[in-house]
Amino acid sequence: MIDERLVELGITLPPTFPPAGNYLACVIIDDMLYVGGHGPIVGSNIIRGKVGADLTLEEAQEAARGTALSILATLKTELGDLDRIERIVKVFGMVNVAPGFNQTPAVIDGCSDLLVEVFGDVGQHARSAVGVAELPFDIAVEIELIAKLRPVR
Amino acid sequence: MIDERLVELGITLPPTFPPAGNYLACVIIDDMLYVGGHGPIVGSNIIRGKVGADLTLEEAQEAARGTALSILATLKTELGDLDRIERIVKVFGMVNVAPGFNQTPAVIDGCSDLLVEVFGDVGQHARSAVGVAELPFDIAVEIELIAKLRPVR
Amino acid sequence: MIDERLVELGITLPPTFPPAGNYLACVIIDDMLYVGGHGPIVGSNIIRGKVGADLTLEEAQEAARGTALSILATLKTELGDLDRIERIVKVFGMVNVAPGFNQTPAVIDGCSDLLVEVFGDVGQHARSAVGVAELPFDIAVEIELIAKLRPVR
Repeated sequence: MIDERLVELGITLPPTFPPAGNYLACVIIDDMLYVGGHGPIVGSNIIRGKVGADLTLEEAQEAARGTALSILATLKTELGDLDRIERIVKVFGMVNVAPGFNQTPAVIDGCSDLLVEVFGDVGQHARSAVGVAELPFDIAVEIELIAKLRPVR
Repeated sequence: MIDERLVELGITLPPTFPPAGNYLACVIIDDMLYVGGHGPIVGSNIIRGKVGADLTLEEAQEAARGTALSILATLKTELGDLDRIERIVKVFGMVNVAPGFNQTPAVIDGCSDLLVEVFGDVGQHARSAVGVAELPFDIAVEIELIAKLRPVR
Repeated sequence: MIDERLVELGITLPPTFPPAGNYLACVIIDDMLYVGGHGPIVGSNIIRGKVGADLTLEEAQEAARGTALSILATLKTELGDLDRIERIVKVFGMVNVAPGFNQTPAVIDGCSDLLVEVFGDVGQHARSAVGVAELPFDIAVEIELIAKLRPVR
Protein backbone atom coordinates (compact mmCIF):
# COMPACT_ATOMS: atom_id res chain seq x y z
CA MET A 1 0.00 0.00 0.00
CA ILE A 2 2.78 2.46 0.83
CA ASP A 3 4.47 1.61 -2.46
CA GLU A 4 1.22 2.54 -4.23
CA ARG A 5 1.07 5.75 -2.22
CA LEU A 6 4.60 6.65 -3.35
CA VAL A 7 3.55 6.13 -6.99
CA GLU A 8 0.43 8.27 -6.41
CA LEU A 9 2.65 11.05 -5.02
CA GLY A 10 5.07 10.72 -7.95
CA ILE A 11 7.91 9.82 -5.58
CA THR A 12 10.84 7.65 -6.65
CA LEU A 13 13.13 6.77 -3.76
CA PRO A 14 16.82 7.64 -4.19
CA PRO A 15 19.53 4.98 -3.87
CA THR A 16 20.50 4.22 -0.27
CA PHE A 17 23.37 6.35 0.96
CA PRO A 18 26.33 4.59 2.59
CA PRO A 19 27.18 5.44 6.22
CA ALA A 20 30.03 7.98 6.52
CA GLY A 21 31.88 6.04 9.23
CA ASN A 22 31.92 2.89 11.36
CA TYR A 23 28.17 2.63 11.96
CA LEU A 24 24.96 1.25 10.46
CA ALA A 25 22.25 3.24 8.70
CA CYS A 26 19.68 1.64 11.02
CA VAL A 27 19.32 -0.98 13.72
CA ILE A 28 16.21 -3.04 14.49
CA ILE A 29 15.82 -4.24 18.04
CA ASP A 30 12.66 -6.25 18.71
CA ASP A 31 9.89 -4.15 17.15
CA MET A 32 11.71 -0.81 17.32
CA LEU A 33 13.78 0.64 14.53
CA TYR A 34 16.46 3.25 15.17
CA VAL A 35 17.57 5.19 12.10
CA GLY A 36 20.88 7.03 12.43
CA GLY A 37 21.57 10.47 11.02
CA HIS A 38 20.77 10.86 7.32
CA GLY A 39 21.63 13.78 5.07
CA PRO A 40 19.87 15.55 2.19
CA ILE A 41 19.97 14.03 -1.26
CA VAL A 42 17.99 15.95 -3.88
CA GLY A 43 18.17 14.24 -7.26
CA SER A 44 21.73 12.96 -7.16
CA ASN A 45 23.15 15.95 -5.28
CA ILE A 46 24.11 16.20 -1.65
CA ILE A 47 22.82 19.55 -0.36
CA ARG A 48 25.48 21.44 1.59
CA GLY A 49 25.82 24.83 3.27
CA LYS A 50 24.59 27.03 6.08
CA VAL A 51 20.87 27.69 6.12
CA GLY A 52 20.21 31.43 6.29
CA ALA A 53 23.43 32.23 4.41
CA ASP A 54 24.18 29.68 1.65
CA LEU A 55 20.62 28.31 1.49
CA THR A 56 17.22 29.95 1.81
CA LEU A 57 14.45 28.55 4.02
CA GLU A 58 12.77 27.10 0.92
CA GLU A 59 15.96 25.36 -0.21
CA ALA A 60 16.45 24.00 3.30
CA GLN A 61 12.90 22.64 3.38
CA GLU A 62 13.61 20.87 0.09
CA ALA A 63 16.79 19.48 1.68
CA ALA A 64 14.78 18.19 4.67
CA ARG A 65 12.33 16.54 2.28
CA GLY A 66 15.28 14.94 0.46
CA THR A 67 16.60 13.70 3.80
CA ALA A 68 13.26 12.05 4.53
CA LEU A 69 13.40 10.35 1.12
CA SER A 70 16.90 9.08 1.89
CA ILE A 71 15.58 7.67 5.19
CA LEU A 72 12.71 5.97 3.34
CA ALA A 73 15.22 4.43 0.92
CA THR A 74 17.11 2.98 3.90
CA LEU A 75 13.88 1.67 5.43
CA LYS A 76 12.77 0.10 2.16
CA THR A 77 16.13 -1.68 1.81
CA GLU A 78 16.16 -2.81 5.44
CA LEU A 79 12.51 -3.90 5.71
CA GLY A 80 11.72 -4.88 2.12
CA ASP A 81 8.27 -3.43 2.61
CA LEU A 82 7.42 0.02 3.98
CA ASP A 83 4.07 -1.33 5.21
CA ARG A 84 6.07 -2.88 8.07
CA ILE A 85 6.11 0.62 9.65
CA GLU A 86 3.42 0.75 12.34
CA ARG A 87 4.31 4.26 13.48
CA ILE A 88 6.90 6.96 13.02
CA VAL A 89 7.51 7.70 16.70
CA LYS A 90 10.13 10.41 17.01
CA VAL A 91 12.11 12.63 14.67
CA PHE A 92 15.22 14.59 15.63
CA GLY A 93 16.03 17.23 13.03
CA MET A 94 19.25 19.21 13.02
CA VAL A 95 19.77 22.22 10.79
CA ASN A 96 23.22 23.54 9.82
CA VAL A 97 22.46 27.15 10.69
CA ALA A 98 24.11 30.45 9.90
CA PRO A 99 24.16 32.72 12.97
CA GLY A 100 20.71 34.14 13.62
CA PHE A 101 18.72 31.63 11.57
CA ASN A 102 16.17 30.13 13.93
CA GLN A 103 13.25 29.04 11.74
CA THR A 104 14.36 25.46 12.26
CA PRO A 105 10.82 24.04 12.71
CA ALA A 106 9.83 25.31 9.25
CA VAL A 107 12.91 23.64 7.77
CA ILE A 108 12.23 20.24 9.37
CA ASP A 109 8.57 20.45 8.30
CA GLY A 110 10.02 19.51 4.89
CA CYS A 111 10.66 16.07 6.40
CA SER A 112 7.57 15.88 8.60
CA ASP A 113 5.22 16.89 5.79
CA LEU A 114 6.62 14.13 3.59
CA LEU A 115 6.26 11.48 6.32
CA VAL A 116 2.62 12.47 6.86
CA GLU A 117 1.91 12.59 3.08
CA VAL A 118 3.31 9.09 2.68
CA PHE A 119 2.14 7.36 5.87
CA GLY A 120 -0.92 9.40 6.91
CA ASP A 121 -1.65 9.16 10.68
CA VAL A 122 1.05 6.48 10.99
CA GLY A 123 3.54 9.17 9.98
CA GLN A 124 2.64 11.61 12.78
CA HIS A 125 5.51 11.89 15.23
CA ALA A 126 7.00 13.74 18.17
CA ARG A 127 9.91 15.95 17.15
CA SER A 128 12.66 18.39 18.00
CA ALA A 129 14.11 20.68 15.33
CA VAL A 130 17.21 22.61 16.34
CA GLY A 131 20.13 24.54 14.87
CA VAL A 132 23.59 23.03 15.26
CA ALA A 133 27.02 24.55 14.71
CA GLU A 134 28.32 22.08 12.13
CA LEU A 135 27.07 18.97 10.34
CA PRO A 136 29.19 16.24 8.67
CA PHE A 137 30.84 17.51 5.48
CA ASP A 138 28.75 20.68 5.71
CA ILE A 139 25.43 19.00 4.84
CA ALA A 140 22.51 21.41 5.31
CA VAL A 141 20.27 19.12 7.39
CA GLU A 142 20.66 15.89 9.35
CA ILE A 143 17.72 13.84 10.58
CA GLU A 144 17.42 10.68 12.67
CA LEU A 145 14.26 8.88 13.73
CA ILE A 146 12.70 6.08 15.73
CA ALA A 147 9.87 3.93 14.34
CA LYS A 148 7.74 1.07 15.60
CA LEU A 149 7.37 -2.00 13.39
CA ARG A 150 4.41 -4.29 12.86
CA PRO A 151 5.05 -7.99 13.50
CA VAL A 152 6.22 -9.91 10.39
CA ARG A 153 3.34 -12.00 9.08
CA MET B 1 -0.84 11.68 44.31
CA ILE B 2 1.25 13.74 41.90
CA ASP B 3 -1.54 16.30 41.70
CA GLU B 4 -1.37 16.62 45.50
CA ARG B 5 2.39 16.95 45.28
CA LEU B 6 2.01 19.80 42.78
CA VAL B 7 -0.33 21.59 45.19
CA GLU B 8 2.14 21.04 48.07
CA LEU B 9 4.89 22.60 45.93
CA GLY B 10 2.63 25.52 45.00
CA ILE B 11 2.86 24.62 41.31
CA THR B 12 0.11 25.43 38.82
CA LEU B 13 0.74 23.93 35.39
CA PRO B 14 0.70 26.35 32.45
CA PRO B 15 -1.64 25.81 29.47
CA THR B 16 -0.32 23.31 26.94
CA PHE B 17 1.71 24.91 24.20
CA PRO B 18 0.84 24.08 20.59
CA PRO B 19 3.50 22.41 18.39
CA ALA B 20 5.34 24.89 16.13
CA GLY B 21 5.07 22.72 13.02
CA ASN B 22 3.74 19.47 11.57
CA TYR B 23 4.37 17.26 14.60
CA LEU B 24 2.82 16.10 17.86
CA ALA B 25 3.79 17.27 21.35
CA CYS B 26 4.16 13.62 22.37
CA VAL B 27 3.65 10.09 21.11
CA ILE B 28 2.83 7.01 23.21
CA ILE B 29 3.95 3.69 21.83
CA ASP B 30 3.13 0.70 24.02
CA ASP B 31 4.31 1.74 27.49
CA MET B 32 6.86 4.32 26.34
CA LEU B 33 6.15 8.00 25.92
CA TYR B 34 8.27 10.22 23.68
CA VAL B 35 7.94 13.94 24.35
CA GLY B 36 9.18 16.21 21.57
CA GLY B 37 11.06 19.45 22.14
CA HIS B 38 9.36 21.89 24.48
CA GLY B 39 10.32 25.49 25.17
CA PRO B 40 10.34 27.71 28.23
CA ILE B 41 7.13 29.32 29.41
CA VAL B 42 7.45 31.36 32.60
CA GLY B 43 4.11 32.83 33.64
CA SER B 44 2.66 33.59 30.22
CA ASN B 45 5.97 34.61 28.63
CA ILE B 46 8.11 32.62 26.24
CA ILE B 47 11.73 33.06 27.37
CA ARG B 48 14.01 33.94 24.47
CA GLY B 49 17.65 34.85 23.97
CA LYS B 50 21.22 33.58 24.19
CA VAL B 51 22.28 32.29 27.59
CA GLY B 52 25.49 34.00 28.69
CA ALA B 53 24.62 37.17 26.77
CA ASP B 54 20.89 38.00 26.90
CA LEU B 55 20.17 35.76 29.92
CA THR B 56 22.12 34.95 33.06
CA LEU B 57 22.64 31.40 34.35
CA GLU B 58 19.91 31.99 36.95
CA GLU B 59 17.43 33.22 34.32
CA ALA B 60 18.27 30.21 32.14
CA GLN B 61 17.68 27.82 35.05
CA GLU B 62 14.29 29.43 35.54
CA ALA B 63 13.64 28.93 31.82
CA ALA B 64 14.58 25.24 32.10
CA ARG B 65 12.19 24.89 35.05
CA GLY B 66 9.48 26.57 32.96
CA THR B 67 10.21 24.12 30.15
CA ALA B 68 9.74 21.19 32.54
CA LEU B 69 6.39 22.66 33.61
CA SER B 70 5.33 22.95 29.97
CA ILE B 71 6.25 19.28 29.49
CA LEU B 72 4.21 18.33 32.58
CA ALA B 73 1.25 20.26 31.14
CA THR B 74 1.53 18.20 27.94
CA LEU B 75 1.77 14.96 29.94
CA LYS B 76 -1.23 15.87 32.09
CA THR B 77 -3.32 16.59 28.97
CA GLU B 78 -2.14 13.45 27.22
CA LEU B 79 -2.40 11.02 30.15
CA GLY B 80 -5.14 12.62 32.23
CA ASP B 81 -3.24 11.58 35.33
CA LEU B 82 0.47 12.19 36.04
CA ASP B 83 0.53 9.09 38.28
CA ARG B 84 0.64 7.11 35.02
CA ILE B 85 4.37 8.00 34.84
CA GLU B 86 6.37 5.02 36.09
CA ARG B 87 9.73 6.58 35.39
CA ILE B 88 11.31 9.58 33.71
CA VAL B 89 13.94 7.70 31.68
CA LYS B 90 15.95 10.18 29.66
CA VAL B 91 16.15 13.94 29.25
CA PHE B 92 17.87 15.77 26.42
CA GLY B 93 18.42 19.42 27.23
CA MET B 94 19.57 21.97 24.69
CA VAL B 95 20.66 25.47 25.68
CA ASN B 96 20.72 28.41 23.24
CA VAL B 97 24.24 29.51 24.13
CA ALA B 98 26.24 32.66 23.52
CA PRO B 99 29.82 31.81 22.50
CA GLY B 100 31.80 30.62 25.52
CA PHE B 101 28.86 29.76 27.77
CA ASN B 102 29.35 26.13 28.78
CA GLN B 103 27.59 25.76 32.14
CA THR B 104 24.84 23.86 30.36
CA PRO B 105 24.43 21.18 33.07
CA ALA B 106 23.62 23.88 35.65
CA VAL B 107 21.00 25.32 33.29
CA ILE B 108 19.26 22.00 32.67
CA ASP B 109 19.31 21.25 36.41
CA GLY B 110 16.41 23.73 36.46
CA CYS B 111 14.40 21.02 34.67
CA SER B 112 15.92 18.01 36.45
CA ASP B 113 15.44 19.50 39.90
CA LEU B 114 11.76 20.09 39.18
CA LEU B 115 11.23 16.54 37.89
CA VAL B 116 12.83 15.11 41.04
CA GLU B 117 10.87 17.50 43.31
CA VAL B 118 7.61 16.42 41.69
CA PHE B 119 8.18 12.70 41.07
CA GLY B 120 10.84 11.78 43.66
CA ASP B 121 12.90 8.69 42.66
CA VAL B 122 10.55 8.16 39.70
CA GLY B 123 11.83 11.48 38.36
CA GLN B 124 15.52 10.50 38.34
CA HIS B 125 16.76 10.22 34.78
CA ALA B 126 19.74 9.88 32.47
CA ARG B 127 20.55 13.13 30.69
CA SER B 128 22.64 15.12 28.26
CA ALA B 129 22.78 18.93 28.49
CA VAL B 130 24.49 20.68 25.62
CA GLY B 131 24.83 24.07 23.97
CA VAL B 132 23.37 24.50 20.49
CA ALA B 133 23.82 27.24 17.91
CA GLU B 134 20.15 28.21 17.48
CA LEU B 135 16.79 27.14 18.86
CA PRO B 136 13.36 27.69 17.28
CA PHE B 137 12.34 31.37 17.39
CA ASP B 138 15.32 32.07 19.66
CA ILE B 139 13.89 30.28 22.71
CA ALA B 140 16.50 30.03 25.48
CA VAL B 141 16.13 26.31 26.21
CA GLU B 142 14.61 23.27 24.51
CA ILE B 143 14.04 19.96 26.26
CA GLU B 144 12.73 16.58 25.11
CA LEU B 145 12.30 13.43 27.18
CA ILE B 146 11.38 9.76 27.24
CA ALA B 147 9.24 8.27 30.01
CA LYS B 148 7.93 4.83 30.91
CA LEU B 149 4.21 4.48 31.67
CA ARG B 150 2.45 2.24 34.18
CA PRO B 151 -0.28 0.01 32.74
CA VAL B 152 -3.75 1.61 32.73
CA ARG B 153 -5.81 0.09 35.54
CA MET C 1 34.09 -12.98 27.78
CA ILE C 2 34.08 -9.20 27.30
CA ASP C 3 36.42 -8.85 30.30
CA GLU C 4 38.84 -11.24 28.54
CA ARG C 5 38.47 -9.23 25.35
CA LEU C 6 39.40 -6.04 27.22
CA VAL C 7 42.55 -7.76 28.56
CA GLU C 8 43.40 -8.97 25.02
CA LEU C 9 43.08 -5.38 23.76
CA GLY C 10 45.22 -4.10 26.65
CA ILE C 11 42.34 -1.93 27.88
CA THR C 12 41.94 -0.94 31.53
CA LEU C 13 38.67 0.88 32.20
CA PRO C 14 38.95 4.29 33.89
CA PRO C 15 37.14 5.03 37.16
CA THR C 16 33.48 5.95 36.69
CA PHE C 17 32.94 9.67 36.33
CA PRO C 18 30.32 11.33 38.53
CA PRO C 19 27.35 13.09 36.85
CA ALA C 20 27.81 16.88 36.59
CA GLY C 21 24.30 17.70 37.84
CA ASN C 22 21.04 16.28 39.14
CA TYR C 23 20.88 13.20 36.90
CA LEU C 24 22.02 9.58 36.69
CA ALA C 25 24.83 8.25 34.50
CA CYS C 26 22.42 5.63 33.15
CA VAL C 27 18.90 4.28 33.60
CA ILE C 28 17.74 0.73 32.93
CA ILE C 29 14.11 0.31 32.00
CA ASP C 30 13.06 -3.29 31.30
CA ASP C 31 15.72 -4.60 28.92
CA MET C 32 16.79 -1.21 27.56
CA LEU C 33 19.64 0.85 28.95
CA TYR C 34 19.87 4.60 28.40
CA VAL C 35 23.31 6.09 29.00
CA GLY C 36 23.39 9.86 29.47
CA GLY C 37 26.08 12.15 28.06
CA HIS C 38 29.63 11.12 28.94
CA GLY C 39 32.80 13.12 28.37
CA PRO C 40 36.35 12.24 27.38
CA ILE C 41 38.76 10.91 29.99
CA VAL C 42 42.19 9.98 28.63
CA GLY C 43 44.43 8.63 31.38
CA SER C 44 43.30 10.80 34.27
CA ASN C 45 42.75 13.95 32.19
CA ILE C 46 39.50 15.42 31.00
CA ILE C 47 40.00 16.49 27.37
CA ARG C 48 38.73 20.01 26.74
CA GLY C 49 38.71 22.47 23.86
CA LYS C 50 37.33 23.17 20.42
CA VAL C 51 38.08 20.54 17.78
CA GLY C 52 39.67 22.15 14.73
CA ALA C 53 41.26 24.92 16.83
CA ASP C 54 42.51 23.63 20.22
CA LEU C 55 42.51 19.96 19.21
CA THR C 56 43.40 18.16 15.99
CA LEU C 57 41.19 15.49 14.41
CA GLU C 58 43.53 12.81 15.81
CA GLU C 59 43.34 14.23 19.34
CA ALA C 60 39.55 14.43 19.06
CA GLN C 61 39.36 10.78 17.92
CA GLU C 62 41.39 9.84 21.00
CA ALA C 63 38.95 11.89 23.09
CA ALA C 64 36.00 10.01 21.54
CA ARG C 65 37.72 6.71 22.34
CA GLY C 66 38.25 7.91 25.92
CA THR C 67 34.57 8.81 26.10
CA ALA C 68 33.63 5.28 25.02
CA LEU C 69 35.88 3.89 27.76
CA SER C 70 34.16 6.13 30.32
CA ILE C 71 30.79 4.79 29.13
CA LEU C 72 32.07 1.22 29.45
CA ALA C 73 33.20 1.98 33.01
CA THR C 74 29.68 3.18 33.82
CA LEU C 75 28.16 0.06 32.22
CA LYS C 76 30.52 -2.26 34.11
CA THR C 77 29.61 -0.60 37.42
CA GLU C 78 25.89 -0.62 36.64
CA LEU C 79 25.65 -4.16 35.20
CA GLY C 80 28.50 -5.92 36.99
CA ASP C 81 29.17 -7.81 33.80
CA LEU C 82 29.58 -6.33 30.30
CA ASP C 83 28.33 -9.62 28.79
CA ARG C 84 24.87 -8.42 29.78
CA ILE C 85 24.98 -6.15 26.69
CA GLU C 86 23.02 -7.82 23.90
CA ARG C 87 23.42 -4.94 21.46
CA ILE C 88 24.68 -1.39 21.27
CA VAL C 89 21.65 0.10 19.51
CA LYS C 90 22.22 3.82 18.99
CA VAL C 91 25.03 6.29 19.59
CA PHE C 92 24.64 10.07 19.59
CA GLY C 93 27.99 11.81 19.33
CA MET C 94 28.45 15.54 19.79
CA VAL C 95 31.69 17.31 18.96
CA ASN C 96 32.66 20.69 20.43
CA VAL C 97 33.59 22.25 17.11
CA ALA C 98 35.52 25.33 16.08
CA PRO C 99 33.78 27.15 13.20
CA GLY C 100 34.29 25.25 9.97
CA PHE C 101 35.29 21.89 11.46
CA ASN C 102 32.86 19.34 10.01
CA GLN C 103 34.71 16.02 10.06
CA THR C 104 32.52 14.97 12.97
CA PRO C 105 31.96 11.38 11.74
CA ALA C 106 35.73 10.75 11.78
CA VAL C 107 35.90 12.05 15.36
CA ILE C 108 33.07 9.85 16.63
CA ASP C 109 34.59 6.84 14.85
CA GLY C 110 37.02 6.93 17.81
CA CYS C 111 34.07 5.75 19.93
CA SER C 112 32.45 3.49 17.33
CA ASP C 113 35.72 1.71 16.50
CA LEU C 114 36.26 0.93 20.17
CA LEU C 115 32.72 -0.41 20.63
CA VAL C 116 33.16 -2.73 17.63
CA GLU C 117 36.64 -3.83 18.76
CA VAL C 118 35.28 -4.74 22.18
CA PHE C 119 31.84 -6.16 21.35
CA GLY C 120 32.22 -7.31 17.72
CA ASP C 121 28.88 -7.45 15.85
CA VAL C 122 27.07 -6.72 19.12
CA GLY C 123 28.81 -3.34 19.11
CA GLN C 124 27.52 -2.26 15.69
CA HIS C 125 25.09 0.61 16.07
CA ALA C 126 23.10 3.34 14.37
CA ARG C 127 24.59 6.78 14.94
CA SER C 128 24.53 10.53 14.45
CA ALA C 129 27.72 12.57 14.83
CA VAL C 130 27.28 16.33 14.83
CA GLY C 131 29.03 19.55 15.79
CA VAL C 132 27.57 21.57 18.65
CA ALA C 133 28.26 25.12 19.80
CA GLU C 134 29.29 24.36 23.38
CA LEU C 135 29.67 21.30 25.60
CA PRO C 136 29.67 21.20 29.41
CA PHE C 137 32.84 22.75 30.87
CA ASP C 138 34.31 22.89 27.35
CA ILE C 139 34.79 19.10 27.01
CA ALA C 140 35.82 18.18 23.46
CA VAL C 141 33.28 15.41 22.89
CA GLU C 142 30.05 14.22 24.50
CA ILE C 143 28.44 10.87 23.71
CA GLU C 144 25.24 9.18 24.84
CA LEU C 145 23.92 5.75 23.83
CA ILE C 146 21.12 3.24 24.03
CA ALA C 147 21.78 -0.49 24.50
CA LYS C 148 19.68 -3.64 24.74
CA LEU C 149 20.35 -6.02 27.63
CA ARG C 150 20.19 -9.79 27.75
CA PRO C 151 17.93 -11.24 30.43
CA VAL C 152 19.68 -11.87 33.78
CA ARG C 153 20.32 -15.62 34.14
